[in-house]
Amino acid sequence: MNFASDNTSPVPTQILEKINDVNHGYQNSYGEDDYMRELTDRINNIFETKKAIVYLVSTGTAANSLALACLSKPWDTIFCSPISHLHQDECNAPEFYTGGAKLTLVGQSDKINPDELLTAMLSEETRGIHGPQRGPVSITQITEKGRCYSLEEIRQISKIKSKFSSLLHMDGARFANALSALNCSPAEMTWKAGVDAVTFGCTKNGLLGVEAVIFFNTKYAREFELRRKRAGHLSSKNRYLAAQMLGYLDNDLWLKLATSSNTMAKQLSAFFESIPYIKLHHQPEANMIFADMPRKVHQQFFKAGAKYYLRNGGLDGNEDELITARFVCSWSTTEEDINAFIVAAQKVIY
Amino acid sequence: MNFASDNTSPVPTQILEKINDVNHGYQNSYGEDDYMRELTDRINNIFETKKAIVYLVSTGTAANSLALACLSKPWDTIFCSPISHLHQDECNAPEFYTGGAKLTLVGQSDKINPDELLTAMLSEETRGIHGPQRGPVSITQITEKGRCYSLEEIRQISKIKSKFSSLLHMDGARFANALSALNCSPAEMTWKAGVDAVTFGCTKNGLLGVEAVIFFNTKYAREFELRRKRAGHLSSKNRYLAAQMLGYLDNDLWLKLATSSNTMAKQLSAFFESIPYIKLHHQPEANMIFADMPRKVHQQFFKAGAKYYLRNGGLDGNEDELITARFVCSWSTTEEDINAFIVAAQKVIY
Amino acid sequence: MNFASDNTSPVPTQILEKINDVNHGYQNSYGEDDYMRELTDRINNIFETKKAIVYLVSTGTAANSLALACLSKPWDTIFCSPISHLHQDECNAPEFYTGGAKLTLVGQSDKINPDELLTAMLSEETRGIHGPQRGPVSITQITEKGRCYSLEEIRQISKIKSKFSSLLHMDGARFANALSALNCSPAEMTWKAGVDAVTFGCTKNGLLGVEAVIFFNTKYAREFELRRKRAGHLSSKNRYLAAQMLGYLDNDLWLKLATSSNTMAKQLSAFFESIPYIKLHHQPEANMIFADMPRKVHQQFFKAGAKYYLRNGGLDGNEDELITARFVCSWSTTEEDINAFIVAAQKVIY
Amino acid sequence: MNFASDNTSPVPTQILEKINDVNHGYQNSYGEDDYMRELTDRINNIFETKKAIVYLVSTGTAANSLALACLSKPWDTIFCSPISHLHQDECNAPEFYTGGAKLTLVGQSDKINPDELLTAMLSEETRGIHGPQRGPVSITQITEKGRCYSLEEIRQISKIKSKFSSLLHMDGARFANALSALNCSPAEMTWKAGVDAVTFGCTKNGLLGVEAVIFFNTKYAREFELRRKRAGHLSSKNRYLAAQMLGYLDNDLWLKLATSSNTMAKQLSAFFESIPYIKLHHQPEANMIFADMPRKVHQQFFKAGAKYYLRNGGLDGNEDELITARFVCSWSTTEEDINAFIVAAQKVIY
Repeated sequence: MNFASDNTSPVPTQILEKINDVNHGYQNSYGEDDYMRELTDRINNIFETKKAIVYLVSTGTAANSLALACLSKPWDTIFCSPISHLHQDECNAPEFYTGGAKLTLVGQSDKINPDELLTAMLSEETRGIHGPQRGPVSITQITEKGRCYSLEEIRQISKIKSKFSSLLHMDGARFANALSALNCSPAEMTWKAGVDAVTFGCTKNGLLGVEAVIFFNTKYAREFELRRKRAGHLSSKNRYLAAQMLGYLDNDLWLKLATSSNTMAKQLSAFFESIPYIKLHHQPEANMIFADMPRKVHQQFFKAGAKYYLRNGGLDGNEDELITARFVCSWSTTEEDINAFIVAAQKVIY
Repeated sequence: MNFASDNTSPVPTQILEKINDVNHGYQNSYGEDDYMRELTDRINNIFETKKAIVYLVSTGTAANSLALACLSKPWDTIFCSPISHLHQDECNAPEFYTGGAKLTLVGQSDKINPDELLTAMLSEETRGIHGPQRGPVSITQITEKGRCYSLEEIRQISKIKSKFSSLLHMDGARFANALSALNCSPAEMTWKAGVDAVTFGCTKNGLLGVEAVIFFNTKYAREFELRRKRAGHLSSKNRYLAAQMLGYLDNDLWLKLATSSNTMAKQLSAFFESIPYIKLHHQPEANMIFADMPRKVHQQFFKAGAKYYLRNGGLDGNEDELITARFVCSWSTTEEDINAFIVAAQKVIY
Repeated sequence: MNFASDNTSPVPTQILEKINDVNHGYQNSYGEDDYMRELTDRINNIFETKKAIVYLVSTGTAANSLALACLSKPWDTIFCSPISHLHQDECNAPEFYTGGAKLTLVGQSDKINPDELLTAMLSEETRGIHGPQRGPVSITQITEKGRCYSLEEIRQISKIKSKFSSLLHMDGARFANALSALNCSPAEMTWKAGVDAVTFGCTKNGLLGVEAVIFFNTKYAREFELRRKRAGHLSSKNRYLAAQMLGYLDNDLWLKLATSSNTMAKQLSAFFESIPYIKLHHQPEANMIFADMPRKVHQQFFKAGAKYYLRNGGLDGNEDELITARFVCSWSTTEEDINAFIVAAQKVIY
Repeated sequence: MNFASDNTSPVPTQILEKINDVNHGYQNSYGEDDYMRELTDRINNIFETKKAIVYLVSTGTAANSLALACLSKPWDTIFCSPISHLHQDECNAPEFYTGGAKLTLVGQSDKINPDELLTAMLSEETRGIHGPQRGPVSITQITEKGRCYSLEEIRQISKIKSKFSSLLHMDGARFANALSALNCSPAEMTWKAGVDAVTFGCTKNGLLGVEAVIFFNTKYAREFELRRKRAGHLSSKNRYLAAQMLGYLDNDLWLKLATSSNTMAKQLSAFFESIPYIKLHHQPEANMIFADMPRKVHQQFFKAGAKYYLRNGGLDGNEDELITARFVCSWSTTEEDINAFIVAAQKVIY
């Protein structure tokens, strides 16, 4: 009954097996290994590209910040949602890696609204050299509130950034979950919709710690190698990162894992919907559920052993106050887990 | 009829005379000159302090950013108004000088509201190491909209920052104008109200280019010397900066200059108030006026030779649309200037 | 016959087994896992400390740069050898992470000489605020030339840094090899000799990618967590880093691996010594050999399938020119490997 | 008898008069003033260029660091002399402004030797992405030891930087002194010899505080405006910087001032040469003299009221030890000053 985060789960055995498979003999270090070459081909194949450039790093914060640093200048401002990992959960990593760029927070929502983006980008042009300059746009697919940009929404955002010759980055920390939700191809969700570079996140969906940064717009890729090395994010034994990803892509494992966690979230949310006083923020679009429920319900759930995050208050306080919960299902969440939680929950809800 | 900015004015002759006065013989360079010692004593006297530490730099952007860099860490967030020079008009200087700190924009107004500040500061505590850490608060006295924080307002903000053991910086780009408006002492408006460090701006009020940073909380001062040197803001012939400020403080020139520009703004705004279809944003509290008037009025004013900034649109467009004007009176604005403008204006308004 | 680098080797099966062992159930993310707690205790035990603080990252460049950033200020200079990974092989990572600190290159050798260090540190005091300020000293144990600082040498360097209230960092990329070579305890080689923080490198000696930074001087540790997070070096699934290190420490595996690679290097170097025209730079002290031999010998070795780095020239050119070779033995180098090379070598040498 | 520094002198009255001349009416702020346009034309005329781009800042450290930041990337290394202001006297400003670039110190001398430069630049190519990348070369004209690069020497250095497609920056802190010494044109000493950007220093030769950065290679200029603004080095009342420079260039004042200080240095050094136990480091090429003399001579000179810097020791110690003195003549040094010193000196020397 652990719904705290997709990061608290173990990894699929197929991944460890693949690590084991590559664990023999000598391989060139620092990304020059055979597996990296195989992986680059594989990713180009999956994304229907010929020359996309692929780099691996071990965390999403590094992937996002290094990518954005390549797409921007230190005097630029990066357009993102106020409810984005970039802004809220990376301890100023984008500011650090870009050398002091600013984040312009667009609107109030986890999803960037194209009209609000247009307004924000327009407003940066009035101050010339005195204000920050227009930099790239970054969207998060699945958003931090568990929602999914539709292809049309991505295309609209892309149209706006193009008006200003800006670039579009996608923080795909839950890329596979989005793909499964949209039931579209990787190409459709990225470069065909105008994305210049994507953080193809794999850790939350099962790896020990690998994120790929894929540059479709390759002219911005050249800096990445230098920035990655300088940041200590070039793995000497890169073969073990490449291997994880090869195992992840084998037999569509990545999509199966994401589809499973999305499905589990739907089952859990269906249960919540059946309780009159539990209010879902919205239908779950991927593997996360946000719902308000009275504090006393949370107290009972926690007492029963459930683990998940509360967002606007703790367990102590007025019993009837509505407190927001975030439930995350991971690839390792099983139907038995969901049922066990429902059984336990039914005992305590009133 | 130039109301574009206090930066477009010449400088009072007394300042040039003082520069002339110190222009003889040898003086130690890099801030070790006799005039700097005299100035430090004078400023301590004016601020009723004994050991405040004073540093000179040549621009407000440098003064603010260097001061804030001393009061914060690269992983902090600095609390300021969204309508602050710091955020809007310094091309990411605070982010640059702090090594990548973030600005948290409090509320929607040019003035920080204490309740909104409390909310903003509280909300930074929920994410531990993942979010930015709480850094200093920076307020602008006179704000970018020409308003003045009262002593009580400063004290309230100070009370909140103290709750979190944060520090309070005042961007006093128009310090003298505020002092004149509040009719209080420098001490009352700064350290007695809880300000830890102030940018004592003098350029807008008449100098060629000198801003003092005064640390009341001297433990944060030690870094300033190293940061200033490293930034190329330590003037080798510092005597000419010190001289400007000595001339500025002699015979209360600084206060007289500010009182004059404040008075001129009042006269000009009284005229605007007499025109039914001109809408002042608020009574001018210092030397700036913000007012909405129909575009055709601006067209006429500009045709008549007036110079000032338009904020939400240009001269071309719908004649009746309300466009915001910013009028700034400087120390060099005379009653004749105001009257000349009024005469010209009366000819064109309907 | 691959002697290119210890980074090109596979990892011991015990490490993969340990990863497998921890791969079940949920664990708190971002370093709050049970295995990390166990590891911290284990390391304190091994280093005979009670409260040393331990952080894990995935690369040596990150470990060194983040540690040094905590021990220095952006206006400092860090004292290191001109032949150090820090200076030569990290693409300006120390300058990046420290926010612009300088490296002062002490002497000409891979080992810092205490007298030269004293001279270098003294010379920084003459320029006051105009020059960089004295920062920490960083030594590399095993040096980039394969040599080992004796305990006495470390103590002498420590005595000098203490004179200036500076701090001592050890880049222990090949920590275990050094320990095996010196036949001393971890405590003796670090805090007992005056080291304030060490990069306890484990990747070169067998892990997939884990380096521990250990702060003995814990007051400088507090920044590390924020710096690591901000740099994207905080692993969400930290359990897999901790597990690697637990496996590494189990049953003294780490020391056995290092002793083996040191021993192999000795066997290889004994062979080189027997060839009159091959000149060892010095007796191998750990797992690296530097030797000059005529280019034609290298040509034959490479033709026979050997892999290693040439340092001051390539395979093409004057046959008799002496070219320096670096041979590295890793934990996976076997006696059979050495013998196979010797057999092949004996066929081609004259 | 003050020979401490050219920064300790007053400024010529012509400069203050020019400031006075422009001190009327309104001028656009932030570099958009009429005087700046006039100055840009004037400088293009003087340098025999059509479209060189000119920016003003108030210190040499800012001029050098901002210029170099435009010519390099954060992962580059900048080639300069170990005895350069850049390296020794700017408290890591180049590292700060470039975002963490490194300085590669070429040779041991104040002048970069072309052969040593070639070796240094070649040696950066062996490490690929692991080492810093080749950045620009920066030379100081007049060097920190008072010597002057000949046109031929500049051309040779330029030939080498061109081999690597690098750029050449000249720190012309004493530009006019060099021009006077070489008796050549500004064009010959800069772009005709391959200089891409020059810091045209004017403060040491008489201004209150103005340095121009001139980009001959204009494609690297575009960043300067943004970097200058972001650094707080864009002067709001730029007219007063432009005015100083106009006064400086009027009637060849700048060249006359420099020629005077060079001449005074020659007279002073002729005197030193006549004393058997005073050893000049080299014939003075501009306005600085470096000479060794016994400590007791310094003690007497100081007692007589002379002021200058000692380089490798203080006034206390062995009387006969040779201590190096730096004497600097400025524009304000008169023949009477020199004679007065000589008279005083003759009384105390033996």
